[in-house]
Amino acid sequence: MKLKPLADRVIIKMVEAEETTKSGIILTGAAKEKPEVAEVIEVGPGGMVDGKEVKMVVKKGQKVITSKYAGTEVKVDGEEYTIVRQSDILAVVE
Amino acid sequence: MKLKPLADRVIIKMVEAEETTKSGIILTGAAKEKPEVAEVIEVGPGGMVDGKEVKMVVKKGQKVITSKYAGTEVKVDGEEYTIVRQSDILAVVE
Amino acid sequence: MKLKPLADRVIIKMVEAEETTKSGIILTGAAKEKPEVAEVIEVGPGGMVDGKEVKMVVKKGQKVITSKYAGTEVKVDGEEYTIVRQSDILAVVE
Amino acid sequence: MKLKPLADRVIIKMVEAEETTKSGIILTGAAKEKPEVAEVIEVGPGGMVDGKEVKMVVKKGQKVITSKYAGTEVKVDGEEYTIVRQSDILAVVE
Amino acid sequence: MKLKPLADRVIIKMVEAEETTKSGIILTGAAKEKPEVAEVIEVGPGGMVDGKEVKMVVKKGQKVITSKYAGTEVKVDGEEYTIVRQSDILAVVE
Amino acid sequence: MKLKPLADRVIIKMVEAEETTKSGIILTGAAKEKPEVAEVIEVGPGGMVDGKEVKMVVKKGQKVITSKYAGTEVKVDGEEYTIVRQSDILAVVE
Amino acid sequence: MKLKPLADRVIIKMVEAEETTKSGIILTGAAKEKPEVAEVIEVGPGGMVDGKEVKMVVKKGQKVITSKYAGTEVKVDGEEYTIVRQSDILAVVE
Repeated sequence: MKLKPLADRVIIKMVEAEETTKSGIILTGAAKEKPEVAEVIEVGPGGMVDGKEVKMVVKKGQKVITSKYAGTEVKVDGEEYTIVRQSDILAVVE
Repeated sequence: MKLKPLADRVIIKMVEAEETTKSGIILTGAAKEKPEVAEVIEVGPGGMVDGKEVKMVVKKGQKVITSKYAGTEVKVDGEEYTIVRQSDILAVVE
Repeated sequence: MKLKPLADRVIIKMVEAEETTKSGIILTGAAKEKPEVAEVIEVGPGGMVDGKEVKMVVKKGQKVITSKYAGTEVKVDGEEYTIVRQSDILAVVE
Repeated sequence: MKLKPLADRVIIKMVEAEETTKSGIILTGAAKEKPEVAEVIEVGPGGMVDGKEVKMVVKKGQKVITSKYAGTEVKVDGEEYTIVRQSDILAVVE
Repeated sequence: MKLKPLADRVIIKMVEAEETTKSGIILTGAAKEKPEVAEVIEVGPGGMVDGKEVKMVVKKGQKVITSKYAGTEVKVDGEEYTIVRQSDILAVVE
Repeated sequence: MKLKPLADRVIIKMVEAEETTKSGIILTGAAKEKPEVAEVIEVGPGGMVDGKEVKMVVKKGQKVITSKYAGTEVKVDGEEYTIVRQSDILAVVE
Repeated sequence: MKLKPLADRVIIKMVEAEETTKSGIILTGAAKEKPEVAEVIEVGPGGMVDGKEVKMVVKKGQKVITSKYAGTEVKVDGEEYTIVRQSDILAVVE
């Protein structure tokens, strides 16, 4: 089973935070807080969205940071995903 | 009796959730919660909507995930449907 | 006496709900609830509305479903009508 | 003394409701309620309004129905008028 | 000392209401209420305002009616003025 | 140290009100109230702002009147400035 | 590890305020208040943002002043950053 996002939507999955602070993991305050880094699982086709041409720039497998509270959470096969608009993605983590 | 949606509207019907978690059914938390997957029943013609050209991409029979609370619920011949805009459809389930 | 709607407006009249559930009548829950089906009485000319070209697609005599609470209610010769924008009409009932 | 409306504005004057229900007078519920029919007194020139071309279609002397609460009330020479935008006029009464 | 309004702004000065009802003076209810007629003192140059071309049509010395509460009040040399956008001016009094 | 405003922004500095009423100083009510006249300190380059071409018309050294509460206050080298958009400037004082 | 901002976003880092008032450091009121000056760490590519072409003008290493409360705070490798839109940047400090 697979989710294919429409338009400028992107399916992301929150990355489990590890408790190492100097190792490159992004943590919001403490290791127990909700991590802000997500992995891109699927990318919509882009195209005309609300009368404006949107070109998708994020790619499957990239780690990204999104606006907090952005998107809709869904559960597929027991796994939790979030569906956001590409414009809710603030930065790519390299 | 049949409903023909106007413009960019899509008529969907919520899919009954089965209680099998690993079988590909999307459940929000528990099997008793409201399912988020709907089947597309009818698709509007698209065209100019609020001054913008909208091309319909969803198709009759597809399973889709919509924004929660999106759309208007109607009852036709004892069956409950929801009328949403195509932009309220987040992803197609394949 | 007659009402001629301006621009993209449509004059509709709520259809009295009959208490037969399997006969094609749309009821919201029970026969006593406010029906959601209306008949189109008059259709405006369309044209430029808020700077956007609107083409009227609904026709006099059609049965339609509108957003709840949409429009302005008026009483003409003792009859109650509702004036809505065409964009408040979700679907045509066939 | 005369008011010349600017842009897409129309000066209307509420019509006194008569207490005859079958005679073509529009009443909201009872004869004592505020009438919803107004006479067009002056029509603005239209033209570019908020960056959009507006063509005036209502005419001096027409009876119209407006959105409730639309417009600004002014008193000129002891008479009360309402200044509305043409887009607040829902229908012409013929 | 002089104020030169920018863009689509107009500087107006409220006209003192006289207590004669049939003489062409616009009063809101009673002579003691705040008058709604203002004199145009200065007119901005118009031009591109918020990405839209605005042509100024009101002229210095005209009497106008504005939306209530529109604009910003300023005091220059002990005199009170109001700075409004031309779109807040509803009608010219002739 | 110097602030260079971006886009359509303008850096202004409130002018100290003097207590002479007939001398051309703008006062809001009394000399003790916050003055509404500011001096233009720096002017941004204009250009495309939110998809619209903005041409800067105010000039360094001009006295201007702004909307109350508009802009962001900053302190540079112990001096207080306000950064506003040019569209928050209502009029130039000559 | 590195953050690459998308679209018109800019990654900034608040500058520690030093307690010298006449030395060119911008302080909001007192040295203990949150400083308003930030250093630009990374600049997004610009391009089409919400249907409008955005050209990036700020540069890595510049000191900037932003709207208070603008942006999203993130922690990378133990350092706190803020991701803002370029339009939230009011001025460059030179």
